[in-house]
Amino acid sequence: MHRTHTCGELRLEDLNKKVILAGWVQRVRNKGGLIWVDLRDRYGLTQLIFEEGEVAESLLKEAGALGREFVVQAEGTVIERAAKNDKIPTGDIEIKVHDLKVLNKAKVPPFIIEDDTDGGEDLRMKYRYLDLRRNVIREKLHLRHRMMQETRKYMDANHFMEVETPVLIKSTPEGARDFVVPSRIHSGEFYALPQSPQTFKQLLMVSGFDRYFQLVKCFRDEDLRADRQPEFTQIDCEMSFVEQEDILEIFEGLIGHLFRTVKGLELESVARMTYADAMRLYGNDKPDLRFDMRIFELTDLTRGKGFNVFDSAELVAGICAGGAAEYSRKQLDALTDWVKRPQIGAKGLVYVKCNADGSFKSSVDKFYSHEDLKSWADKAGAQAGDLLLILSGDTNATRKQLSELRLKMGEDLGLRDRSVYKALWVLDFPLLEWDEETSRFHAMHHPFTSPKKEDLPLLDTDPGKVRANAYDLVINGVEIGGGSIRIHDRATQQLMFRHLGFTEAEAQSQFGFLMEAFEYGAPPHGGIAFGFDRLCAIFGGSDSIRDYIAFPKNNAGRDVMINSPSGISAEQLEELSLAIQERNEQK
Amino acid sequence: MHRTHTCGELRLEDLNKKVILAGWVQRVRNKGGLIWVDLRDRYGLTQLIFEEGEVAESLLKEAGALGREFVVQAEGTVIERAAKNDKIPTGDIEIKVHDLKVLNKAKVPPFIIEDDTDGGEDLRMKYRYLDLRRNVIREKLHLRHRMMQETRKYMDANHFMEVETPVLIKSTPEGARDFVVPSRIHSGEFYALPQSPQTFKQLLMVSGFDRYFQLVKCFRDEDLRADRQPEFTQIDCEMSFVEQEDILEIFEGLIGHLFRTVKGLELESVARMTYADAMRLYGNDKPDLRFDMRIFELTDLTRGKGFNVFDSAELVAGICAGGAAEYSRKQLDALTDWVKRPQIGAKGLVYVKCNADGSFKSSVDKFYSHEDLKSWADKAGAQAGDLLLILSGDTNATRKQLSELRLKMGEDLGLRDRSVYKALWVLDFPLLEWDEETSRFHAMHHPFTSPKKEDLPLLDTDPGKVRANAYDLVINGVEIGGGSIRIHDRATQQLMFRHLGFTEAEAQSQFGFLMEAFEYGAPPHGGIAFGFDRLCAIFGGSDSIRDYIAFPKNNAGRDVMINSPSGISAEQLEELSLAIQERNEQK
Repeated sequence: MHRTHTCGELRLEDLNKKVILAGWVQRVRNKGGLIWVDLRDRYGLTQLIFEEGEVAESLLKEAGALGREFVVQAEGTVIERAAKNDKIPTGDIEIKVHDLKVLNKAKVPPFIIEDDTDGGEDLRMKYRYLDLRRNVIREKLHLRHRMMQETRKYMDANHFMEVETPVLIKSTPEGARDFVVPSRIHSGEFYALPQSPQTFKQLLMVSGFDRYFQLVKCFRDEDLRADRQPEFTQIDCEMSFVEQEDILEIFEGLIGHLFRTVKGLELESVARMTYADAMRLYGNDKPDLRFDMRIFELTDLTRGKGFNVFDSAELVAGICAGGAAEYSRKQLDALTDWVKRPQIGAKGLVYVKCNADGSFKSSVDKFYSHEDLKSWADKAGAQAGDLLLILSGDTNATRKQLSELRLKMGEDLGLRDRSVYKALWVLDFPLLEWDEETSRFHAMHHPFTSPKKEDLPLLDTDPGKVRANAYDLVINGVEIGGGSIRIHDRATQQLMFRHLGFTEAEAQSQFGFLMEAFEYGAPPHGGIAFGFDRLCAIFGGSDSIRDYIAFPKNNAGRDVMINSPSGISAEQLEELSLAIQERNEQK
Repeated sequence: MHRTHTCGELRLEDLNKKVILAGWVQRVRNKGGLIWVDLRDRYGLTQLIFEEGEVAESLLKEAGALGREFVVQAEGTVIERAAKNDKIPTGDIEIKVHDLKVLNKAKVPPFIIEDDTDGGEDLRMKYRYLDLRRNVIREKLHLRHRMMQETRKYMDANHFMEVETPVLIKSTPEGARDFVVPSRIHSGEFYALPQSPQTFKQLLMVSGFDRYFQLVKCFRDEDLRADRQPEFTQIDCEMSFVEQEDILEIFEGLIGHLFRTVKGLELESVARMTYADAMRLYGNDKPDLRFDMRIFELTDLTRGKGFNVFDSAELVAGICAGGAAEYSRKQLDALTDWVKRPQIGAKGLVYVKCNADGSFKSSVDKFYSHEDLKSWADKAGAQAGDLLLILSGDTNATRKQLSELRLKMGEDLGLRDRSVYKALWVLDFPLLEWDEETSRFHAMHHPFTSPKKEDLPLLDTDPGKVRANAYDLVINGVEIGGGSIRIHDRATQQLMFRHLGFTEAEAQSQFGFLMEAFEYGAPPHGGIAFGFDRLCAIFGGSDSIRDYIAFPKNNAGRDVMINSPSGISAEQLEELSLAIQERNEQK
């Protein structure tokens, strides 16, 4: 046996026990004939002590020679500490060691393995196994572990069956971002890795499984952006004989359960908002509701006073930054520069300061009277001391810019507290979205989402107006899940494919099995999927999902620790009937 | 809301309640102005009743027109049944329907959706979503669900952290059976799908995670045999600061927990046997211990009596089939034919009947005396009425043949009861195995398995004799798990790679990251992995793992439901910088 106790376990009540501990050397101190060694494992830290005269010279020498991150086994007696350390649970005791064994030596690590490290991102990725040794990182993975266990507990208690769907599935032309897997046995043919188990979970509903869930790896070969991973984990769920309301209830329950059990927080009830309202009031389909600062519209109030910028704008709208009337000229100039950055793209920024004395100071004073500005402030619900920030232009672009500005102001004014959680259902998403590039509609959610019955007539006349039975769950401005009530009959599914520009043959060859399944008694059903990596990051109070993944890939989709992807041998290629071919230069 | 109750829920105490049920039409009966409809869902079956005169003519007509597998919603009142059915929990009540809605029609299914179906394997694979609708199949998946939940409960309670390891990893020349995934972004490079998360779980130990587990999909592009799947699920585990005994204890605990919670059975303590004993006594490294029938050796006792077959054999050995002395000439001839089949490969079969009167009757009476035969029977521990079956030849081949014969006799004599579970640890596996084809040793378990310290000197002199710290868990003759104490220092790992025929450069390029990790403070560690699909099949009392997988592939590795693998478009190939190339004909 390598140990009798872990390094986080011993207390005063264990005094005089003979124990064996094993772990990593965190620190060695040597002073006046005494050597202390901090021994660390996942469970904690225990101090070992070696006293000159009390122990053999050789043992003292061995202890003094220990290096950082050596793996050792120490046998000794639990004694009371002279100088107690109330910062750690084992701080009342130490181990008077009488036998020490180095189980493995360690080279000097390439960066310091403590909560604050000197290691840069790249170095820590290459030596991820050492980065994972740091408590702050391991705790994130432990949070993830607990989220997994509690998710399954809740789902199981609510009669969801965990079913593993296949990883080797079929590539479809729709799945332009599919990873594919060449088959050796069926040469020239490929499997694909799932971007989601969507069709399989719908088939399970046709099978009468009633309630399905899975914590499942999904894959997307996207051009990588920061905080995207080619493989990611979903909490994937589907239910039969439900309407939207049933799904919202069950999954509010899940999120509430996770906050309660993992964070010890009671989440207040989840707000609800239509997509249209979210766009109008927050300029965003995933508003951060930790602070209000809604968009107010001034288009009518600003017209005809000679200010051409506003007169010619489709939308004039603003936000009210509470208590920011004190902003200096310099601060306002910086804000103006900020909104004019190419990433935001506003032409300019109009401000109105609501002064304490009831007067107003604006950047458009020469066009607008006190009464004009007062009517704006009234529309904004502004009070003395507030600052109105106004943008104008095309409706969609202006809303988007205001959303960015709102988030920035929320951040600057300290309104986005990481310890506060505000959850929101966004409802009634559009079914279709116009894609400029391909000049056709594509499904905003996916082609299996059902349109609202009352909007069906619009499908032929004004497809962009058709609303879907689709919903997203947003926490603190981050979309963490989305789903829909599905189409469950062949006719509607075919209609949908037609509107998405599929020929009948294409629809049949790609999703024929699903449409055929709908003909054998498919129940009404719907579901949802949560981005589990992101959910963990939100719970951990972090912006980056990467820390919540044990072995993440870098921004180029590369695992720099194992050096993957990499070349394969000529024999392997030949076995797969493949040859590497340079791409056409024009591509 | 589509339903107020499920089809398995209503009882006598619900009498007179107004309810809404939804489900599939299992059966419609029509007799004397009454129509009964059995409505089915995952939870059970409830009878609907429509009575002429009591309900509108149109409703009666609708009910009469319902077809098998129609999905319907029925609103009605719970009433007491005239003729109770004590075979189902809802058998005391029925629903007097006053409103009926067809939610979806169903074509006539291609096979009967009942426990006994008329559908052939191929048809049921193509319409797997209908096959899954059968209770007997869904219950198997439900068993799997419960096994998953209980596995996680046990592991969590024992401080194992569930960590997801990557699916897109690196291909190694060792991994000849790797599935590879071409990278679009890094053209000409490939990821590989893991055959197991072996190196990652070892790195987690280097990271100090102490106890890791995962229920994880693994992949192997093998030439397919019956009951192998290209993707399969493992319970994958690793622990630090442990010796073999610690691991055996923890995982006996897991198996015991699963039997207790999932099957309501107390498993008796798990037997232990060395690999050498298993081979000697059962001819097999995974003996079925539901019955004894050990191999006894007669080589010395048979020598020099003029029977050349035995005299020239390296091994003469047999098994004792209890109570089979009554076997007829015909039965014995059939057995002889059976052992001579090419799959078994014995030259012939010698039998000795131990008659009730103390006499013997054998097929080699002309060479061996009564005393000879008596000495054999004594060696076999045979009693009157038993039948000795004896084979001879090369040691390994003879043992293997005897193992097959033993299993057949166990089957024929009814000794392999599916409701009985006998678990066994097989210990002390050889480290290396000689591979005739490549004329070199390869690792019996994998290259990360540690040799027994006391056998280390043999590594240079007699490598085949070196025993490993490796163990398999066997239940009823099926290997369901295996693992080892790992190498945790660079020097030993390098030595191991050298003995496996790796050049230093090869070892470095493939496993350099792991060997480097060993230099930064790697703890002693070991682990195990269980074949989860097979474990579920054993628990379900089935030989086939396929029924325990929701969407299995067929023997050719093909998903015939979605038709995968399949071709991909020229554009996709070009994006991946790949071209399909015919294989050389000679291969």
